[in-house]
Amino acid sequence: MTRVHKFSIPEIIFGRGSLSYTGLCARQLGGEKVFLVSDRGLEEAGWVARVIEVLEAEKLRWVYYSEVVSNPRDFQTHKGAEYYLQQGADVIIALGGGSPMDAAKGIALVASNGGQIQDYEGANRIHRPLPPMVFIPSTAGSGSDISQFSIITDVGRQVKMSIISRTLVPNISIIDPLILETKSQKLIIAAAIDALCHAVESYVSKISSPFTEVQSLQAIRLILQHLKPAVATRSLEHLEQLSIASTAAGMAFSNAGLGAEHALAHSLGGMFDTLHGLVHPILLPHVMRFNLSACTEKIAVIGEILLGRPLGSVQETAAAGIEMLETYCGELNVPVRLREIVQDRSRLEDLCKMAVNDVCLLTNPRPAGWEDLLHICWEAW
Amino acid sequence: MTRVHKFSIPEIIFGRGSLSYTGLCARQLGGEKVFLVSDRGLEEAGWVARVIEVLEAEKLRWVYYSEVVSNPRDFQTHKGAEYYLQQGADVIIALGGGSPMDAAKGIALVASNGGQIQDYEGANRIHRPLPPMVFIPSTAGSGSDISQFSIITDVGRQVKMSIISRTLVPNISIIDPLILETKSQKLIIAAAIDALCHAVESYVSKISSPFTEVQSLQAIRLILQHLKPAVATRSLEHLEQLSIASTAAGMAFSNAGLGAEHALAHSLGGMFDTLHGLVHPILLPHVMRFNLSACTEKIAVIGEILLGRPLGSVQETAAAGIEMLETYCGELNVPVRLREIVQDRSRLEDLCKMAVNDVCLLTNPRPAGWEDLLHICWEAW
Repeated sequence: MTRVHKFSIPEIIFGRGSLSYTGLCARQLGGEKVFLVSDRGLEEAGWVARVIEVLEAEKLRWVYYSEVVSNPRDFQTHKGAEYYLQQGADVIIALGGGSPMDAAKGIALVASNGGQIQDYEGANRIHRPLPPMVFIPSTAGSGSDISQFSIITDVGRQVKMSIISRTLVPNISIIDPLILETKSQKLIIAAAIDALCHAVESYVSKISSPFTEVQSLQAIRLILQHLKPAVATRSLEHLEQLSIASTAAGMAFSNAGLGAEHALAHSLGGMFDTLHGLVHPILLPHVMRFNLSACTEKIAVIGEILLGRPLGSVQETAAAGIEMLETYCGELNVPVRLREIVQDRSRLEDLCKMAVNDVCLLTNPRPAGWEDLLHICWEAW
Repeated sequence: MTRVHKFSIPEIIFGRGSLSYTGLCARQLGGEKVFLVSDRGLEEAGWVARVIEVLEAEKLRWVYYSEVVSNPRDFQTHKGAEYYLQQGADVIIALGGGSPMDAAKGIALVASNGGQIQDYEGANRIHRPLPPMVFIPSTAGSGSDISQFSIITDVGRQVKMSIISRTLVPNISIIDPLILETKSQKLIIAAAIDALCHAVESYVSKISSPFTEVQSLQAIRLILQHLKPAVATRSLEHLEQLSIASTAAGMAFSNAGLGAEHALAHSLGGMFDTLHGLVHPILLPHVMRFNLSACTEKIAVIGEILLGRPLGSVQETAAAGIEMLETYCGELNVPVRLREIVQDRSRLEDLCKMAVNDVCLLTNPRPAGWEDLLHICWEAW
């Protein structure tokens, strides 16, 4: 190991009922008027009202912005930023899954740095500080409350842009596992598989470090141990462990980056508006097979966790681990073939030509051209 | 797990040669005039000159403060704070082991919050923000570059005060394993055993969390694997792993606290000016035995790492683990009996009556009065 590694995470407040710290955190960061970003689902589950109650108890003023959809759009961040400035807000609170949180980052970015969200696509292109941000994740998956990433769809180009910068790490992440109790089974699985994919891709990333690797493996272990019981029993004990796993995976991928699977997943989301978490069971095993030669030992470490023991050789353990992951995903009752979510095979070439420009591909352990990505898609078809 | 846990660490820049980022980091934090704290040993090894070179390359102005000794004193922080204000510095850089780093925190604290360093003894008593801090640890042990702790000796009372606050976490920790190459064998051992003790005490702490426990175990594993080879070969590979271990242990104890062993170690340092790291091999096994009934399962997890496998029962694994730790410390060629560092047995009672007030005792897994601590000291005598 000779490279210099950076490791940066937000302050974390974790535990059942920790949502009640939200107002205090906003105050601590100097906030007086909160810009709260969330969505319809969380309104209906009563969590938005609960956050507002906590803010008012702290005598904070607030405005609420909910014009956010799954796979948040460029224009929603522009509109939100305008509203933020118009209202004179000074701290941003996001309550939600990856979409409200990524949208909130986009709003914070455009409100403070000006221009269009497109101006910041790629890595390290943000130069002015953002307003303070307190994020409350409502799913155990996206890791947006921990990470340097914001993924926003450029509607014109039908592209999901990756915007990556240390300044996109929220100041404080408040992780309250009680919120998971109101989530559907489908969302719990989609989120956990997203976290699993973050853990796997960050572990084999070209810029992983000892600080990220320990978190990646912790996340993989916890998800394999707790996802199925969490879905079966909905018990808080298992849901809580998925929150811990997702947070660990967030620490890992935020600092080590992702890979070819997320590059493809972003393009699928941009072109077909697919639910992000449901792409991974389809693509991840095939991307791992593609990467196998470049990081056999690391995939064998993952394989050993999946299999519960090492096999005769590193090669065997790695290969059997990938098969076991396929079996595991198959048992989750989610789509496992690409043809189930993409109707028209002829669009795969465009998809891959777009994915090859995604910044996530830079940290993939094996170099991949668009033809390689297309081959992966065919394997997954 | 029902409690709410907080987890906060600095931004970390890790790797060989990472010291060269120091100037850039000070600039990023808005610094124009650096207050550099270090000591004679690092001057002689050439590292102070190297840091100054890096600062000058970044066109930063600087002043240098080296009036710091092992177990830093209250008056040194007061004098340093006066010098800081007089010089109009706006960012603090510490280069050193625990002593220069803890002194730099004390200087930053008094310079920004006024009064005497004694005013802040205990937990969460700092209310105004500190100047930005960039720390460069020169040993793999204290974790002061990561932690919320500053330990300063109150000369009048002969007490090592624990000052604990989130605002004492430096903004950036630059960890350059190359610096370890110029350290003596004795210092490498003392530092690594300090980190091992941080890891063990934080793991069994009453307020440990999944976020700290994974770091504690990582640190224990790495130290057991790499300390003896590092001492034997002085190879950078092993020294680097000790740096990673110390950083992990720092993340753990900063957020989970310590225990009875550190309460006693601080009092020993305050009364006898003993080298902090050399106290642990003497006391740690006896404190673990005292705690055994309160956290048998956790001590068995540590035992399993020490023994390489679990024994027939949790009780057996835990007890054998403590014995193995004693054997391990005995092989390091350091004092292992308390009488080797304290001459007068009659002073133990005063020592324990002082240690019982140390804030570290609050997180010890088993409640301990001064008589319990005295019993531990007799066992270790």
